[in-house]
Amino acid sequence: MLQSQLFYKTLKEFPKDEEAVSAKLLVRAGYIDKLMAGVYQFLPLGLRVLQKIEQIIREEMNAVGGQEILMPALQPKEIWERTGRWETLDILFKLKGAGEKDLALGPTHEETVTPLAQKIIFSYKDLPKAVYQIQTKFRNEPRAKSGLLRGREFRMKDMYSFHANQKDLDQYYEKVEKAYEKIWERLGLDKITVKTYASGGTFSKYSHEYQTLCVTGEDTIFVCEKCRVAVNKELINELKACPECGNKNLVEKKAIEVGNIFKLGTKFSNAFNFKFVDEKNQEQLVIMGCFGLGPSRVMGTLAEVFNDEKGIIWPESVSPFQAHLINLKKDTKDAQNFYNQLMKEGIDVLFDDREDISAGQKLSEADLIGITHRLVISEKTGDKIEYKKRGEKEVKLMNEKEVIKLLK
Amino acid sequence: MLQSQLFYKTLKEFPKDEEAVSAKLLVRAGYIDKLMAGVYQFLPLGLRVLQKIEQIIREEMNAVGGQEILMPALQPKEIWERTGRWETLDILFKLKGAGEKDLALGPTHEETVTPLAQKIIFSYKDLPKAVYQIQTKFRNEPRAKSGLLRGREFRMKDMYSFHANQKDLDQYYEKVEKAYEKIWERLGLDKITVKTYASGGTFSKYSHEYQTLCVTGEDTIFVCEKCRVAVNKELINELKACPECGNKNLVEKKAIEVGNIFKLGTKFSNAFNFKFVDEKNQEQLVIMGCFGLGPSRVMGTLAEVFNDEKGIIWPESVSPFQAHLINLKKDTKDAQNFYNQLMKEGIDVLFDDREDISAGQKLSEADLIGITHRLVISEKTGDKIEYKKRGEKEVKLMNEKEVIKLLK
Repeated sequence: MLQSQLFYKTLKEFPKDEEAVSAKLLVRAGYIDKLMAGVYQFLPLGLRVLQKIEQIIREEMNAVGGQEILMPALQPKEIWERTGRWETLDILFKLKGAGEKDLALGPTHEETVTPLAQKIIFSYKDLPKAVYQIQTKFRNEPRAKSGLLRGREFRMKDMYSFHANQKDLDQYYEKVEKAYEKIWERLGLDKITVKTYASGGTFSKYSHEYQTLCVTGEDTIFVCEKCRVAVNKELINELKACPECGNKNLVEKKAIEVGNIFKLGTKFSNAFNFKFVDEKNQEQLVIMGCFGLGPSRVMGTLAEVFNDEKGIIWPESVSPFQAHLINLKKDTKDAQNFYNQLMKEGIDVLFDDREDISAGQKLSEADLIGITHRLVISEKTGDKIEYKKRGEKEVKLMNEKEVIKLLK
Repeated sequence: MLQSQLFYKTLKEFPKDEEAVSAKLLVRAGYIDKLMAGVYQFLPLGLRVLQKIEQIIREEMNAVGGQEILMPALQPKEIWERTGRWETLDILFKLKGAGEKDLALGPTHEETVTPLAQKIIFSYKDLPKAVYQIQTKFRNEPRAKSGLLRGREFRMKDMYSFHANQKDLDQYYEKVEKAYEKIWERLGLDKITVKTYASGGTFSKYSHEYQTLCVTGEDTIFVCEKCRVAVNKELINELKACPECGNKNLVEKKAIEVGNIFKLGTKFSNAFNFKFVDEKNQEQLVIMGCFGLGPSRVMGTLAEVFNDEKGIIWPESVSPFQAHLINLKKDTKDAQNFYNQLMKEGIDVLFDDREDISAGQKLSEADLIGITHRLVISEKTGDKIEYKKRGEKEVKLMNEKEVIKLLK
C-alpha cells in the first residue's frame, strides 16, 4: 500500500477529548475515529489490526471445535423476558420496531443462542456442541470515556457450549482455557495476562476473567505470584487468599479485562426449557458454558500497554502491515523497485512514497504508527537498507535479500 | 468437517412462516434461522456462503483501489439532521442512548462517511479516494417477509468515493461498473443480472441498479435485449425507450435488486460543507459516488434462482464446502481414509459420516444442501468414487487421484 494513497491522517497533537492513552494514540495515529462517546470507526490501519486479532481468535476457536455462526443484533423483547433480563439489564439498548414491537440490541447472546440450539440439539448424540460468533455488540454504557476499552458499540467473540453433563463442561472449559492462553501468547499478551477468579453465580463456584496487567486499567485484581493467577476485587473480600494455593500475600494490581469465561450450568436452558434425551431416554436440561473475548478491547489494550513516548509498538502478529518501507531519497525509484519486489514476495508493506514530507516527519510518523519492521532507504545508506524493529534501539544495514529473508 | 458434528438440522417440511422460495430452502436446509421477521441468524453452513460472497466482493473492491474501513451502526441524531434525513427516512430505527441522547441505527452511511472523509481530505492532492465497508445495516421495514431478500438487519457492502471533479467521478464509476460485472461473473449471476437505469436525483441524470432476473422478484424492470441493459419501473414512464439505443421494444421482467450505484455529486459534501483546495488554491465541494451491494441479499438471490425440486444448487464459488463426501458403506473406514486424504490436500469437505441415517436420506439431504461436488462411497462402487455435480444428471466413477485432481 502506498502511504500517499492511504486513507488516514495523523494528528500533530493528542486529541483533547480522549482520556485513555490507547485512544489518544490510536486516534492520533489514524487507526480509529470517534463518532461519539464509546462509538468508534476503524480506518484502514485500524481495521487491519482488528481483523488480524479476530483471525487469531477465530483460528483458536476453530481448533477447539467451535463452529462459527452469526447471530443478529436486533432481538425481540420476548426472549429477554424469558430470562428476566429485559428489566434487570440496565445497559440494554431498547427500541421500537415496525408495529411498535419492542426490540433490544444484543449486548450478549445467551437469549438468542439458547433457543437456537434448542432447534438443533435433541439427544445426547447431538452433544457436545460449541458455536461462536465474532460480531458487533451494543451496551448503553452511562460512562464511555476509555476509547476502545469500554465501548457502547464494540466487537465481541462469544462462544457458547452445550453439554450432557457437568464433567463434559468441565473438560471443555479447561480446553478453552488453553485456547485462550494460546491467544494471549499469539497476541504477545501472555506474560501480562492472568487468569483471575471471579464470582460464579448460582451454578459454579467461580467464573474466570482474563486480566491484562496495566497501571491505567479500570479493574483491581489481587495476584498470587506463586500460581500466576489472581482474584478479582469482588471476590477477594470473600476469599482473602489464593484459591489455588492458599497464599495470603496477594499483590494488588490494576488490570484490563480482556476475556471472561463462565460455567452457565442450566441457568439459560432452564429459562427456555431446553432439554435433551439422555442414554436412558430421560429428559435432562442441557448444561452450558460461555466464553467471551473482545477483539476491539484487545486492540485498545495492546495500544495501552505496548507504547513508548514516540507511539504504538504493535506485536508482530497484529501489526497493520508487516513492514514499513520509508523512502528518504530524493528520487523514489530505488524504493519503488524494492517495494515492488517485496510485494512480489507476498510481503505486506506500507510504502512511504510521499515526496513533500520531511525525513524527520516520516520517521516520527512511522514510530507513532508502530509497524513492527521499519525499512529505510536513504542517500547515506547507499545500496543497503536500514533495518530497525519498532521498540528496539539497534539499527542494522541489510541488503535486499537479507530483508526479504527476515520478512518471509 | 464431520456432518455428525455440524451445527445444523434440516427440516422435513418447508417452514410455514416463509413466503420466499429462497427463505424456505435456506431455513429447511439449515443455512439460516429466523429470529423474527426480517432478522435471520446464519448457521455454520450459511455463514460459510456469506463469507465467501463477502470475500469475492472484498477482493474486487480492493482491486479498484477501495480501502476497507468499518463504520458504526450507532449514530448520533445530529449527523442525520444535517441532511434532513432524520425526519424523511421512514425506515430509520431511532433509539435513546445514555442521557436521553437521540440515536439512529445506520441504514446507510453517507452521513457518517462524509464528515469522516472531511477529517482526512483537504487538498486536491488527497483525491481521489474510495473507502468501503462490509457491515451490518438496519432498516425498519414495515413488511419484511422475503427472507434474506428484504431484511431489517442485513449485511451490506457500501463503498463511497471522493473526487475533485465530475470527470474523475465518471471514470471511477465506469471502473466500479466493471468490478461489479466481475462480481456477478464470479457469483455465477452475470448471465441473469442486468444494469438497470434508475432515476438519478439532483446531480446525475441516472443512477444504476443491478437487477437479477427472477420471476419471484419484487421489482419490475424493462429489458432492452439489444443492449443488455434495462430501465426500472419508476423511470420507464419518463423514458419509454432504452436510454442507450432508443429501442422501444423493452421486455417487462421481474427482478431482484442486488446492487445500486449512484453519482451523489455534491449532495452530501454540501450538507457537511466538505470542501477541498484545488490546484488554483480555490475551495471546492468534493464530488462523491456511492456503490452498494448486499451480500446477504445476494445469498438469498442465489438460492432463489439456483434451485430445483430437490434443493439449492450453489455456484461453485460460494458453495459452503468444496465437496460433499457421503459414506453409504456399513463401515466408515474407507470413507474416513479418503476424507483424511482430501483434508491433507487442502480440500474443504463436508463428510457425511453419520451411521444411523439411511442412504436415501443422506442423498436427498445432500441435494437439499446443494454443495457443488458430490462424492459417494458405497459397496456397489467398490474402490471407485461416484462423482456427481449438483444440478447435473451425469454420474461418473472416478478413482481417488482423479477426484483430487478435479477438486484441486
